[in-house]
Amino acid sequence: MNYRKLGNILGKIMILEGILMLAPMVVSLIYREPFKNVLAFVIPIAVLELLGTLLQLPKAKRSSLYQKEGFALTALVWIMMTLFGAIPFVISGDIPGYIDACFEMMSGFTTTGSSIIADITTVSRSTLFWRSFSHWIGGMGILVFVLIFIPESDDGSSMHLLRAESPGPQVGKIVSKMKMTTRILYLIYLGMTVLQVVILMLDKPIPGYEDDKLFFSLLATFGCAGTGGFGFIPGSMELFHPFSQYVMAIFLILFGCNFSLYYLLLIGKVKDVLRSEEFKSYFLIMALAVCFVFISLAGRLEAFPQPYTTEEAFRHSLFQVASLMTTAGYTTTDYHVWPMLGTMALVIVMFIGAMAGSTAGGIKVSRIVMALKGAYVNIRKLINPRYVPVIKLEGKTLEQKTINDVFAFITLYCFIFFTAMFLLAFDPVNGQEARIASDAGEYVVKHGFFSNFSAVLTCISNVGPAFEAVGPYASFAPYSWFSKIVLTFTMLLGRLEILPVLILFSRRTWKRV
Amino acid sequence: MNYRKLGNILGKIMILEGILMLAPMVVSLIYREPFKNVLAFVIPIAVLELLGTLLQLPKAKRSSLYQKEGFALTALVWIMMTLFGAIPFVISGDIPGYIDACFEMMSGFTTTGSSIIADITTVSRSTLFWRSFSHWIGGMGILVFVLIFIPESDDGSSMHLLRAESPGPQVGKIVSKMKMTTRILYLIYLGMTVLQVVILMLDKPIPGYEDDKLFFSLLATFGCAGTGGFGFIPGSMELFHPFSQYVMAIFLILFGCNFSLYYLLLIGKVKDVLRSEEFKSYFLIMALAVCFVFISLAGRLEAFPQPYTTEEAFRHSLFQVASLMTTAGYTTTDYHVWPMLGTMALVIVMFIGAMAGSTAGGIKVSRIVMALKGAYVNIRKLINPRYVPVIKLEGKTLEQKTINDVFAFITLYCFIFFTAMFLLAFDPVNGQEARIASDAGEYVVKHGFFSNFSAVLTCISNVGPAFEAVGPYASFAPYSWFSKIVLTFTMLLGRLEILPVLILFSRRTWKRV
Repeated sequence: MNYRKLGNILGKIMILEGILMLAPMVVSLIYREPFKNVLAFVIPIAVLELLGTLLQLPKAKRSSLYQKEGFALTALVWIMMTLFGAIPFVISGDIPGYIDACFEMMSGFTTTGSSIIADITTVSRSTLFWRSFSHWIGGMGILVFVLIFIPESDDGSSMHLLRAESPGPQVGKIVSKMKMTTRILYLIYLGMTVLQVVILMLDKPIPGYEDDKLFFSLLATFGCAGTGGFGFIPGSMELFHPFSQYVMAIFLILFGCNFSLYYLLLIGKVKDVLRSEEFKSYFLIMALAVCFVFISLAGRLEAFPQPYTTEEAFRHSLFQVASLMTTAGYTTTDYHVWPMLGTMALVIVMFIGAMAGSTAGGIKVSRIVMALKGAYVNIRKLINPRYVPVIKLEGKTLEQKTINDVFAFITLYCFIFFTAMFLLAFDPVNGQEARIASDAGEYVVKHGFFSNFSAVLTCISNVGPAFEAVGPYASFAPYSWFSKIVLTFTMLLGRLEILPVLILFSRRTWKRV
Repeated sequence: MNYRKLGNILGKIMILEGILMLAPMVVSLIYREPFKNVLAFVIPIAVLELLGTLLQLPKAKRSSLYQKEGFALTALVWIMMTLFGAIPFVISGDIPGYIDACFEMMSGFTTTGSSIIADITTVSRSTLFWRSFSHWIGGMGILVFVLIFIPESDDGSSMHLLRAESPGPQVGKIVSKMKMTTRILYLIYLGMTVLQVVILMLDKPIPGYEDDKLFFSLLATFGCAGTGGFGFIPGSMELFHPFSQYVMAIFLILFGCNFSLYYLLLIGKVKDVLRSEEFKSYFLIMALAVCFVFISLAGRLEAFPQPYTTEEAFRHSLFQVASLMTTAGYTTTDYHVWPMLGTMALVIVMFIGAMAGSTAGGIKVSRIVMALKGAYVNIRKLINPRYVPVIKLEGKTLEQKTINDVFAFITLYCFIFFTAMFLLAFDPVNGQEARIASDAGEYVVKHGFFSNFSAVLTCISNVGPAFEAVGPYASFAPYSWFSKIVLTFTMLLGRLEILPVLILFSRRTWKRV
């Protein structure tokens, strides 16, 4: 392990995090919040800048990073960002417990959006801003962002970092230079963000929150762009007007697309976009899921706890599928009370997630497509042992190794899933009853198997809300500190796609080279 | 597809199934059951013998079987056995619906033990015998049994059949001749069965069922030997004395071991048995699971719905883990009301299952061990890209291909799991309430996510009972006919380990060669 280089890069990121924290500090000043809230950001900023500068001082003997160093560094950066990013929550008093604050911060950076805040109305605006802003930062990746400013060397270090952080089975450059690629992608990200804010501003203000249209439009957009989904007013997106809900659903779907496709659009290669298998599969799965959810709701518009109109049933179907499949996790209604068909459709899209190379989590559509192709090949080989498979994706031949990696990934995903569920089983909250008040009325649910199952699912896929006792109108607050640490790690495992986090636990990683 | 050869072998199995049905017919005569019950077996026996003989007539031009034919034939044999084996249930009137009867029969042959019979006291003894006997037949495999009588040719046909039917990632011969291997294994199976019956006969009779100790000992043993687990008196094994329950737990654990190990024992290679990694892992997982379940129960012996003594808590922990991990599914108490830690331990061992080469279902311990070793290698490769892995199991080097197949298997397992759950979501039973009466008292549960999850799990792992609305004191009767067909296929997919069933759906399989 090249400790000095590691320290140098960690230091750079600390300085950057300090700079990013200026934004919520300014928000705090604008809203004339108590001095404590300003201090909540001033203190960590000072610490970050100081430590960051100190860590830059030792000169690294070797400037390049090996693969393992790149992967371990990526995981460390995310953990460090979370540990420091959580400090303002504690100082401001919005989240008094540090473990709770780390849960919330990890949930922010990994664009999960699961919250331990039981009553969002008590939280200061600067905290709301920092939470949602962290989605935007984490969406495209923290290291990716830094790479724009680090002089590119051709030793492959940046490629290792990017591979560890980018969602999806493969990393491709869209232009020959990696730095150029990241710049283009970030510009697209920024452009779409601005566009969404502008469109949301066109809508009427939210009833009861007339004062700050820009503030709430910005927060809503941060959550969409990073596919994070922290709520900032009671009921997540329930109070937003239908126009805004449709706009958000559409932008969520757009942010769930592989950003390389937008680059292709920009340079006029529309046909290539439409021919993309992952693109087609993504829309097909989403369309099917919307249909199934709509059917499950339409079947009993009357008898239902929530009496929906047909338009509402359609809007909620579209919004919920878009929100949960892109792993944002915004909600417009209490989907927990929906019939089983709707529930299963939502659970399945939460597993699948959106496209690789987007800001979304989950297993990723491309992995699902590859796994299905791989399974088909296995059957073909059984039928004809001499069959030599040629598996193609997006017109390119897939190596058997890539398919095997996908199989290995899904297996590891299952192992981690059940390990996390097993650890949650020790929580005294299990079996306890939770009182939920939602647009479907008040009801009592028991914290059971489905609560833990969906809690792990929502964390590993970086979605946000779960079902049952941790449903869209509940919070993760009742979990014990141990469970919260487990779920915090689950989010990180999901965001970095397992291996970069696991590598931290091997002694070999830390050997001095 | 070599249709004539296919017909020949199918015919042979039909004749065999007819002969096997003589056993329950004799039971029917011994207990002087109404004529209808005798007829219930006479009719299918006649049909089977006639059809079986006719199918033998066309001479196959090619006597060998290709791999795909061996696999497809295996799946067809199991389906055919089920379709004919279900007829007696319908004629006797014990299970009036044919789809229900097929569910029950498939559950029997695949040694699942899930039942659609709501009240077991109304069922005739011959039906009870045929159900439990089917576990014994299916446990070691139907085709394996037939192979003993088919003259062995060296063209590999029998190997294809065995590979398709044997549980586990690999098939090994223990002696050089395949027929000899199967004979030895079947003799061990028979010997252990007789031993268990004899030991069970030593216990006092079951209260309320004093009349037929031999009959009930035999049925209990069939369920243990095949790790099937059909109940035949109310409350599964609840009414059996603790002595019998301990005996059954121990025999279940023994039947969950790879039968090759017994051969090694017989020829004096005790050290080889003790060194077996799968053997050690199997006992380690089981011991851990018993501990966790016991801890979860011991923590609240008083407050619990069922007031257990410490001995009871231990006995139920041991019995339930043994029964669910070996995928038998016998129960001694209502484990559905247990705390979450116990629930999760049981769910996880249901996934894992017992050893390859045993009569048990599930993913199999050897696959879990291989997957973990494979995952470890992936991390090592990430740390050092030049690392050349040598993965060993039981002292032998594992090929990377075997590991990849395991990863592919687990991925496919997940896909089938969620596909089945999705199909169950259409059932109108979802959301309905079920009234359960067990040793933990009377309570009402809603048919929710966990019901379907555990129903699919219990079917794909060939366990038997599930949780919630399909828990140990409930039946699968409330499911719709569509769901029952889905679950019937899920059992077959689990028993034949997926590929032999999937191959039936490819047109290439049916091409005339």
